[in-house]
Amino acid sequence: MRIRKKKHADERLTQCEGYYIENPSDYKGKWNTVFPSNGELHLEIGCGKGRFITESAKLNPKINYIAVEVCLDVLVLAAEKAKKSELKNVKFILMDARNLREVFADGEIDRIYLNFSDPWPKNRHYKRRLTYKDFLELYVKVLKKDCPIYFKTDNRNLFEFSLNSFCNNDFRLKNITLDLHNSGYKGNVMTEYEERFFAGGNPIYRLEATYRG
Amino acid sequence: MRIRKKKHADERLTQCEGYYIENPSDYKGKWNTVFPSNGELHLEIGCGKGRFITESAKLNPKINYIAVEVCLDVLVLAAEKAKKSELKNVKFILMDARNLREVFADGEIDRIYLNFSDPWPKNRHYKRRLTYKDFLELYVKVLKKDCPIYFKTDNRNLFEFSLNSFCNNDFRLKNITLDLHNSGYKGNVMTEYEERFFAGGNPIYRLEATYRG
Repeated sequence: MRIRKKKHADERLTQCEGYYIENPSDYKGKWNTVFPSNGELHLEIGCGKGRFITESAKLNPKINYIAVEVCLDVLVLAAEKAKKSELKNVKFILMDARNLREVFADGEIDRIYLNFSDPWPKNRHYKRRLTYKDFLELYVKVLKKDCPIYFKTDNRNLFEFSLNSFCNNDFRLKNITLDLHNSGYKGNVMTEYEERFFAGGNPIYRLEATYRG
Repeated sequence: MRIRKKKHADERLTQCEGYYIENPSDYKGKWNTVFPSNGELHLEIGCGKGRFITESAKLNPKINYIAVEVCLDVLVLAAEKAKKSELKNVKFILMDARNLREVFADGEIDRIYLNFSDPWPKNRHYKRRLTYKDFLELYVKVLKKDCPIYFKTDNRNLFEFSLNSFCNNDFRLKNITLDLHNSGYKGNVMTEYEERFFAGGNPIYRLEATYRG
């Protein structure tokens, strides 16, 4: 997948110094040194316009957040949100999730969030879905032992695919819900997309997955 | 739970000799002797009007089927269906699933079917759902090692409850689908209820669960 680049977005991202990490592999194994204080390291893969990660960072100042996004045009909006709120505990990386291990050391991450990932609805594209086994293997490597992946989506087919992928690859699932907003789950932080979708009355699917190995 | 009894139904059941097993605990550990030939023993818990079990028995003459149902009035209809088709490989038992171990020896069953079980929608009734952990423990006992439970339902809340219950009780899940009739799954035998529900365009949820222990 090629990353779309626009000159304008590039310039705007440069304005987000301190939020946007240009050479992320320089920090492999020492991500906590990038933040003012030590804390759990939570990683969102595919942060989109960044509402989830910035709201989470506000709510949990002791947790350090890193957001990865493959598309420059939306990453800019995310980084600008964090800058505007002067958040000290969130950083942004422009990268493809396939390169995760170039940027994070084994066991460096305490939690991974996958929120409304691209469903890649065509069957022949299933390997691009962020819950495909090759991605799950990457996540297991960069996550600390027994640390979870939190996954939510509005896409029934992606959720079905993901349930099977997690189960077939030896993850323990818990807190599975087929209708998040009627499930009694507390502490949900909505993404931009989720709010729009939720307003339409459609269910959101969610689960937590931890590798058994 | 009390079993409803009607005199009329009782008489009709008596007419189903050879299909209805009156003293099922007599056959504990030797169910295969009840059938003309040896074969895998598949158990449906809650057979309702019996369409699933009789159609399955027709399609798979080498498999021996036992259907359990707590309600006499529908069990009669199921047994009459089997009698009408002169099926030799299906038997019916009037009983509560809680007493499963009084009737089946440990490891006697090759597969369990739970089809459109009562969802018991009120929260306070969750222990009555047939995928509640106490029931799962019974199933594990009567099932042969590594033999599966096949579960399907139209009820989203029951499916969600069941996903969590299976996962929390150390079952391995596979072939999970959130829309059975659009999943490409082959060999589905519809229940009466399923056909009616399916005609309404609503999704059917399904999974296969095997105990890891």
